[in-house]
Amino acid sequence: MEKIIINTPGSRSEIHIGAGWESVGTLLPGSGVVIVTDDNIKRLYGDKFPDVPVLSVVPGEDSKKLTVIEQLADKLLEAGIDRNGFILAVGGGVVCDLAGFLASVYLRGVRCGYVSSSLLSQVDASTGGKNGVNLGGTKNIIGIIRQPEFVICDTAMLFTLSEEEYLSGLAEMIKTAIIGDAELFDLIENSFKGIKERDYDLLTDMVYRSVKFKAAVVTEDERETGLRRILNFGHTFGHAIEMQTQFKHGFAVASGMELATYFSLDRGLLDENSAVRIINLLKKFGLLRDYDISHTQIERLVTHDKKKAGSSIHFVFSDGIGNAVVEKISIPEIIDFYKRFKDKT
Amino acid sequence: MEKIIINTPGSRSEIHIGAGWESVGTLLPGSGVVIVTDDNIKRLYGDKFPDVPVLSVVPGEDSKKLTVIEQLADKLLEAGIDRNGFILAVGGGVVCDLAGFLASVYLRGVRCGYVSSSLLSQVDASTGGKNGVNLGGTKNIIGIIRQPEFVICDTAMLFTLSEEEYLSGLAEMIKTAIIGDAELFDLIENSFKGIKERDYDLLTDMVYRSVKFKAAVVTEDERETGLRRILNFGHTFGHAIEMQTQFKHGFAVASGMELATYFSLDRGLLDENSAVRIINLLKKFGLLRDYDISHTQIERLVTHDKKKAGSSIHFVFSDGIGNAVVEKISIPEIIDFYKRFKDKT
Repeated sequence: MEKIIINTPGSRSEIHIGAGWESVGTLLPGSGVVIVTDDNIKRLYGDKFPDVPVLSVVPGEDSKKLTVIEQLADKLLEAGIDRNGFILAVGGGVVCDLAGFLASVYLRGVRCGYVSSSLLSQVDASTGGKNGVNLGGTKNIIGIIRQPEFVICDTAMLFTLSEEEYLSGLAEMIKTAIIGDAELFDLIENSFKGIKERDYDLLTDMVYRSVKFKAAVVTEDERETGLRRILNFGHTFGHAIEMQTQFKHGFAVASGMELATYFSLDRGLLDENSAVRIINLLKKFGLLRDYDISHTQIERLVTHDKKKAGSSIHFVFSDGIGNAVVEKISIPEIIDFYKRFKDKT
Repeated sequence: MEKIIINTPGSRSEIHIGAGWESVGTLLPGSGVVIVTDDNIKRLYGDKFPDVPVLSVVPGEDSKKLTVIEQLADKLLEAGIDRNGFILAVGGGVVCDLAGFLASVYLRGVRCGYVSSSLLSQVDASTGGKNGVNLGGTKNIIGIIRQPEFVICDTAMLFTLSEEEYLSGLAEMIKTAIIGDAELFDLIENSFKGIKERDYDLLTDMVYRSVKFKAAVVTEDERETGLRRILNFGHTFGHAIEMQTQFKHGFAVASGMELATYFSLDRGLLDENSAVRIINLLKKFGLLRDYDISHTQIERLVTHDKKKAGSSIHFVFSDGIGNAVVEKISIPEIIDFYKRFKDKT
């Protein structure tokens, strides 16, 4: 088991990689614990949950809304959970986002920790303290940044994921490789079979590398005023595609990374060989799906993206595998690129 | 104009006492500002608001709920407010609590400041960073602690308050005097006429003293793990009375202080002379109203109070005017005292 620490002003978060999730009991206080999970996870793992109240939500993005937070808070109140309470999330990104936000605002903040069950949440969502809910069609409009006390990433839990969920997480791992870890990129390129077969040691190593990179970024810039922006590689277009198509997050981000890669090439930041390697890797794992979104739709969607600052956007480019650079780009420039890209393909 | 600074980990808040609220323009960024207010304040002061979008809620405690937060966030999104946005609250406790929470969670946090228009919010609610909304009948269940960049306390705004609102704020000022400022207590005792007539200089001085004390407490213990608990003097019973009777906050707290004073006397912490002075001062300003709440009702209400820790409560006693002490008291002990008190009166 490997441990990675995220130290931020006023908090410390421990990420346990390759740990058995059942060991979570040793990290919990003796009383006041409540588990927040979803019905799928409860069905799969519920019989091994610690003996505490369990609040289970309907699986899926639809549960990420304020009315669900309200219902959960009501149940915490009913269960007599006070300021000494502890919320343990057991689940993927949706559950961790919900439970993390709930713990941040219930009685103005109670303790929390996550058992992160999906590849997507292990390598991305559950590390870094971002939590929140959606507002109508727009993602994560209401939330805060607050580190959980711990995140347990149990590789064995990844074996129960559907192929679709698994690949969605792989896309975020490829993102990490592109923006910050050229060796991880090589490893993914050279481990097609091991990845498809979900080799335990390989996955543990890849998750460890991904979390290590993200933890370093978050430690330096928790509030995303600079460096942390690079984690949004592929996400400006990715969020727009996700909102329009209902692709799973990683698939939308993969298409967003395809666009960001060509945009990087277009601006002379990225060499052609690297661009080809990126696109080929995304294709090899079947991450690029067809979608049909006009440039006027993209404009509307991108303008609603919350990472927008004024009339321009901090757009993340790759300037070589393992490296990223953020530039402030005007929205018309972004739309113009998208139009040219769509006309060509 | 006096300025008081609250320095807490990661933030700095400036409280301007006796400043003209119209000067707020000098504290705002050049773009991205939205005002959150209520219909009463908008009617009174709206014509002098800076020229920015104004979101106005229905006045009163009923607006403190998550659905209102959702509606306001939707409007911010429509208005194109991004992470560089700034929310300016203009109003009393409800408006500041709502706007402060909105600013804390919209896009995971945007800047904010308050123009605090009621005596209650000037001396209590708007200083210290507590914000939030109610859940069903229970107060402030969802919220966080986050300091606004500034709070403007304009004494002239107090002239438009109803007598009821004004006295509600006075009760919190008397609380401050009891727990931390014996000189302020003397001043209030000796200034009946000036207080009733809302003398500008007297009020400015009294607000200054109240804020100064609260700021020192919050600077030392922002997250209420120790010292800050003393600010809850009168609030354990006060919240219960408020939920049951719909008294304005200050009147409920006044009755809560009456109980806490007798409880302090009962436990030998407070001398009889001081207890008489406190009760007489509350009576002199007409702050003690009749209510009829049985001890079984009180038990249910107190148990729901969010300051509960396990089966006991951090109860705040006075051990002399200008001083307070917190003791962990079991709920049965509290209920037993309440029963004896009601039997006697």
